Amino acid sequence: MATEPKKIIIDTDPGVDDAMAILLALRSPEVEVIGLTTIYGNVYTTLATRNALHLLEIAGRTDIPVAEGSHVTITQGTKLRIADFVHGADGLGNQNFHPPKGKPIEQSAADFIVEQANLYPGKITVVALGPLTNIALAIQQDPAFVKNIGQIVILGGAFAVNGNVNPAAEANIFGDPDAADIVFTCGADVVAVGINVTHQVVMTDADRDKLVCSNGKYAQYLCKILEVYFSYHHDAYSTKGVYLHDPTALLVAVNPSLFTYMEGVIRVQTSGITRGLTLLYNKQKRFAEITEWSDKPSVKVAVTVDAPAVVKLFMDRLMDS
Amino acid sequence: MATEPKKIIIDTDPGVDDAMAILLALRSPEVEVIGLTTIYGNVYTTLATRNALHLLEIAGRTDIPVAEGSHVTITQGTKLRIADFVHGADGLGNQNFHPPKGKPIEQSAADFIVEQANLYPGKITVVALGPLTNIALAIQQDPAFVKNIGQIVILGGAFAVNGNVNPAAEANIFGDPDAADIVFTCGADVVAVGINVTHQVVMTDADRDKLVCSNGKYAQYLCKILEVYFSYHHDAYSTKGVYLHDPTALLVAVNPSLFTYMEGVIRVQTSGITRGLTLLYNKQKRFAEITEWSDKPSVKVAVTVDAPAVVKLFMDRLMDS
Repeated sequence: MATEPKKIIIDTDPGVDDAMAILLALRSPEVEVIGLTTIYGNVYTTLATRNALHLLEIAGRTDIPVAEGSHVTITQGTKLRIADFVHGADGLGNQNFHPPKGKPIEQSAADFIVEQANLYPGKITVVALGPLTNIALAIQQDPAFVKNIGQIVILGGAFAVNGNVNPAAEANIFGDPDAADIVFTCGADVVAVGINVTHQVVMTDADRDKLVCSNGKYAQYLCKILEVYFSYHHDAYSTKGVYLHDPTALLVAVNPSLFTYMEGVIRVQTSGITRGLTLLYNKQKRFAEITEWSDKPSVKVAVTVDAPAVVKLFMDRLMDS
Repeated sequence: MATEPKKIIIDTDPGVDDAMAILLALRSPEVEVIGLTTIYGNVYTTLATRNALHLLEIAGRTDIPVAEGSHVTITQGTKLRIADFVHGADGLGNQNFHPPKGKPIEQSAADFIVEQANLYPGKITVVALGPLTNIALAIQQDPAFVKNIGQIVILGGAFAVNGNVNPAAEANIFGDPDAADIVFTCGADVVAVGINVTHQVVMTDADRDKLVCSNGKYAQYLCKILEVYFSYHHDAYSTKGVYLHDPTALLVAVNPSLFTYMEGVIRVQTSGITRGLTLLYNKQKRFAEITEWSDKPSVKVAVTVDAPAVVKLFMDRLMDS
């Protein structure tokens, strides 16, 4: 007997690899996408909402609601860092698609997430692919949210490796470090997938050629938007390929056994030159003094990934559509 | 023909493992100890000076000058963290040795280091085994110091691992993060040896038994002071043995080929919950934006160590004395 698909909400800032993750989710029978919520990051929030609606129209899934998220960081005072040089000015590879016909729902992203967690206690997984403002707002809005939410999967952090915004910080955490610290220490079932893991998952030029040659509708769409993203990776990392950040994190919700995990306490540095740094305490040492990590709840952190299996699953599902 | 021994100044806060490193240096023909300079850390500076003088008297090397260093951090405002719970209240395993007969020289530690670097341009190696205040003061005092000093070997930092004061920070860097940032970015030939390396170098209970059974004068002395240090490690790390932090760093000056190194830029976080964190930029990614690591000079960082060879060299030289 088939198990009921896992209900997921994707919190997203599309973004080329967000688009990949959303389309992959829609092609994955293990999960049911019950909503998209939007956030700034790869683009500003308004454009993220527009792109989320556009992607659902491309996929013929306008039944899925889009709730617009925060336009500002949780402390409201921080200048946003928008990664349009990675994803194109439109967030989708400078393709300048027609505006979507649909509109976001009236609810805010945080309200939508809180409501769904209340409706289906323990059953909802939030897959957070951008800065964590909406999730932190949900935590602040409803004291029961942490208990009601099933799991929060976070694409974010750079654990024991250099960041991708600067040597200290990964982009999603850097986008709202205060929100990230709230989410990592909230006590919910949190799984973090950092760039130490996603940098192992590379879609090569040859993989892209396979997509181009396939007849899949989604594959054809993705090939259009991938040019800018490939070009950025070539310049920044000298790689012949791109990192599958968001699809990899999405697959934690789809098939957690593709990863191994460790447990520990994560805190986020919110100021100074390492602002946005994620620091995992692995509990190997007992410190003589109380530290900022003491008595904080543990989370799971992905440490290894079956990268070939992730790439294959991604390719298979996107080509066969 | 034997090469001339390398002139070294040991900047130290004895400290059980400082004592080990100082005695090891005095037993190593590859180096000539031309002075000890003192600093707070394992003990307050006054006691560090007393212990440095005491150790030279134990070794019969009262010809070596001791210059007392700073009593406060470089910003002067920070409460000192003294690790007497690791080394004993007297810094030497609660042995309460008689006060030394000798006195420190009139010069400050920073003055002494600057003077020696000027006297022997390119020939002096400073082996810094405590917080880096004295070295930072030397850099600030003399614009030519960075050019004149041969090498600065630093025991400090936790590179891609948890710290030992708290999950973020290693004790020596935590002791004066502002000074550490000055030293790491000064442009001199700097080699950093962090706890990611020194935690691989363990002196076991069995090694201690060997010391006890040997007739070496230094070995007998060390066995007296080791009890508290072993007991701390057992409680904090559940290890049957102790980390040879300071002797390991000393051996970078004695025999650099016991280690492998990488190059990169190190910055130190000086505030917030990760105060004292050392963040190494490995230059694998080219960042789109200017970062706090851009245009800063590179240093060498030890990444692997031949741990059995280090322990053997330490044991052999201390037993045979």
